[in-house]
Amino acid sequence: MRVIGIDPGLRNMGWGVIDVAGSKLSHVANGICHSEGGHDLAARLLALHAQLTRIFATYRPDAAAVEHTFVNKDGAGTLKLGQARGIALLVPAQAGLSVGEYAPNAVKKTVVGVGHADKGQIAHMVRMQLPGVDIAGPDAADALAVAICHAHHGAASNLAAAVARASA
Amino acid sequence: MRVIGIDPGLRNMGWGVIDVAGSKLSHVANGICHSEGGHDLAARLLALHAQLTRIFATYRPDAAAVEHTFVNKDGAGTLKLGQARGIALLVPAQAGLSVGEYAPNAVKKTVVGVGHADKGQIAHMVRMQLPGVDIAGPDAADALAVAICHAHHGAASNLAAAVARASA
Repeated sequence: MRVIGIDPGLRNMGWGVIDVAGSKLSHVANGICHSEGGHDLAARLLALHAQLTRIFATYRPDAAAVEHTFVNKDGAGTLKLGQARGIALLVPAQAGLSVGEYAPNAVKKTVVGVGHADKGQIAHMVRMQLPGVDIAGPDAADALAVAICHAHHGAASNLAAAVARASA
Repeated sequence: MRVIGIDPGLRNMGWGVIDVAGSKLSHVANGICHSEGGHDLAARLLALHAQLTRIFATYRPDAAAVEHTFVNKDGAGTLKLGQARGIALLVPAQAGLSVGEYAPNAVKKTVVGVGHADKGQIAHMVRMQLPGVDIAGPDAADALAVAICHAHHGAASNLAAAVARASA
């Protein structure tokens, strides 16, 4: 089963693809979709949608998970992130996948073992679990962590869904 | 020039299409895209995207405007709305349109004359400006108001863009 994890953001949207065979994980690819500030918002969302759609077409994941956005007191920031997150959820749905959602501390707890790990620890543990991986940046590390989290939590149900799709 | 206005929402996304000829406005169509609660978020965004895409294909607007979401203290609500708003911005961008954005009080000021009008007043003034219109609901009335606002504010620049597209 191939899993894609997405860490949504308007400027930088991290993505990471892994293969899961039983308890064995292996790295496929990771990177960052980018939209330049200064362009109007609709154009930025269009750019993110196009980049992410291309990634789905290239790697054809069987399952997808998106990090649950941290909601803070900054309403304008939350709104921006929400708009980017709408794209991050839409693209897998357009590919026919259901989308797992995980809170950041659930991801950290799965990957690092504690819910309050910093970005450096996450990248370190991702490297431990995906030997040889070359990580495109912190957002891509977070995305790989989301994919690993989904592989652990959702493996059984997602595998069943993937098999059902394959035999449909 | 044909203008679509969109009032974004996750459960109910209002839309309204008007034709603009000089200072003359006329109603084309309005309605509400709907996504049922209970389904997972990605599936709801997919449903909204599909419905709105169909509306663009049917009415082929030359210009689009989206109401700027009111950001409040409720972070979770802002995030939800942001995700729906991402779809409302993406669909016109995918149709090759730039997207005007207007704050609710700017819309009210244009349509009603004051920035603090209630929903009933907005619907009333939309009916005055679009004689014979049958409004699908409050979200559709807001969407028509956004379209009217865009026709007033953006008419010159949008008409130029539409003409440029038509002659391209």
